[in-house]
Amino acid sequence: MTAALIALDWGTSSLRAWCLDEGGRVLDQHESPEGILHVKDGFAAAFDRITGAWRKENPNLPALASGMIGSAQGWKEAPYLPCPAGPEELAGAMIALPEHGLHIVPGVAQRHPADVMRGEETQIAGALALNPALRAEAHLVMPGTHSKWVTLRDGRIEGFTTFMTGELFAVLKDHSILGRFAKAPAGDDEAFSRGLQAAQEGDLPSRLFSARADVLLGDRAAASSLDYLSGLIIGAEIASALRHMTPQAAPVLIGAPALVDRYRRALAAFGLADAPAIAHTAVAGLWQIARAARLIEGTRP
Amino acid sequence: MTAALIALDWGTSSLRAWCLDEGGRVLDQHESPEGILHVKDGFAAAFDRITGAWRKENPNLPALASGMIGSAQGWKEAPYLPCPAGPEELAGAMIALPEHGLHIVPGVAQRHPADVMRGEETQIAGALALNPALRAEAHLVMPGTHSKWVTLRDGRIEGFTTFMTGELFAVLKDHSILGRFAKAPAGDDEAFSRGLQAAQEGDLPSRLFSARADVLLGDRAAASSLDYLSGLIIGAEIASALRHMTPQAAPVLIGAPALVDRYRRALAAFGLADAPAIAHTAVAGLWQIARAARLIEGTRP
Repeated sequence: MTAALIALDWGTSSLRAWCLDEGGRVLDQHESPEGILHVKDGFAAAFDRITGAWRKENPNLPALASGMIGSAQGWKEAPYLPCPAGPEELAGAMIALPEHGLHIVPGVAQRHPADVMRGEETQIAGALALNPALRAEAHLVMPGTHSKWVTLRDGRIEGFTTFMTGELFAVLKDHSILGRFAKAPAGDDEAFSRGLQAAQEGDLPSRLFSARADVLLGDRAAASSLDYLSGLIIGAEIASALRHMTPQAAPVLIGAPALVDRYRRALAAFGLADAPAIAHTAVAGLWQIARAARLIEGTRP
Repeated sequence: MTAALIALDWGTSSLRAWCLDEGGRVLDQHESPEGILHVKDGFAAAFDRITGAWRKENPNLPALASGMIGSAQGWKEAPYLPCPAGPEELAGAMIALPEHGLHIVPGVAQRHPADVMRGEETQIAGALALNPALRAEAHLVMPGTHSKWVTLRDGRIEGFTTFMTGELFAVLKDHSILGRFAKAPAGDDEAFSRGLQAAQEGDLPSRLFSARADVLLGDRAAASSLDYLSGLIIGAEIASALRHMTPQAAPVLIGAPALVDRYRRALAAFGLADAPAIAHTAVAGLWQIARAARLIEGTRP
């Protein structure tokens, strides 16, 4: 089998790379902590280190990268593409680093309200390839440091909203008074559920302090305070998102399995049970965009 | 003029003390950074250092303290008093440190939703003494690290909500991606107003990231990003509070003048113009509660 594409999901804190054959199957893969904030000797050196072996036999093997590598802090900036945008538009707006045989997928921007994504657009292209039934109309939830709720229509990203859920939890845990009672969540499912419930009963600004007050008044064990806070913040994300969209069914989850499980439970508490999940979307999306851009010899889009 | 009471507002990060005459007038006052987190050689030593000169002539001069000094991390815990509570109930639930001639005012707790205050109950007693028209029914806003919105009825605290506004702004500024564009607010009133407007158009979880996205998309100068964030978070507090109460007029503001000005502007953006303010509430409240407790010789409650 012959290598046909090097695909890179190059984010802020880590990097994943795949060597794909002409059918998009994974021949080899590599994970590295060399996210754009941790590259020490320049992007070109990191790129050579990670992909050099794959390019030894074929120095012209094309490479395609998505994620923060295309941000202003990355290797070369790929300006945001406006919504609506799908795989074809992304393929048409890639930027090139010809001396390295590398292309970079642009991020996507929404104007009103202002919002941006970088990396998720490629995962979405992958989700569309893996599950073509999403083309007509679908809602996706991509949990994480900055969760995204995405509306798809006619195979393109129509609009989206970023929730700083993961980062908000982390800064409150590590730096606010709400983190004084526990170092980490204790795995207390009941406290997590209570947090989800509190998020349904009231909004985040008015309920945040209850993560402390409940403990002070003896209503919750100090050790479970961060489980409650997690439920409260994830619940606030879901409650807010559902104020602006009314999905007929549970949205489709894309993300790390543990986080997908947590969000599936949370969505069920809001009446959206059995949310389906799609995995391996980044590599599928890079393959899809590379095909649309005719980066791969002998393949047609 | 004879000293009749030592009044102390003893908080987490600082302490204010007053020596009052038998009419409640300030004879002398003292400010100190010896909040309960910064006391090095014990509370008794700090108390003696701050009040010793006043007690020299009259070793039996009574003292009354409010604030975090009565918390579990303070000198002696004064358990929370349940709502509804007013100056009479607070006077009846004080705890004593007889060997120091000191009493401590308890905090106040609300059960559903769980919430607590410690120090504000005394400021509220002061506001009621300074403006008796608030007795029948009033809404108070006490901006700060943990802002409180308080409903008064028949001269007592009927209920309240804590908003972690000041702390939320601080941790996002210092520890999140939203603090990357500026070190401090730039005094950009227009950006602050835009933040207030965004808080009226959408909820906090769905709008928080706009503080970054607006800058990335060229809609706001990086230097003004924290002015916008301040408007957004204060606006989210007001929007949330107004979902649960419909004041006939602007609520009464209690707090530091700069913060009161900022909230007055913010309330005006929500249609609540010309919010009145009350100053010097802590010392007035301590005097009021001391009278109600008959701590002061020769005075009647």
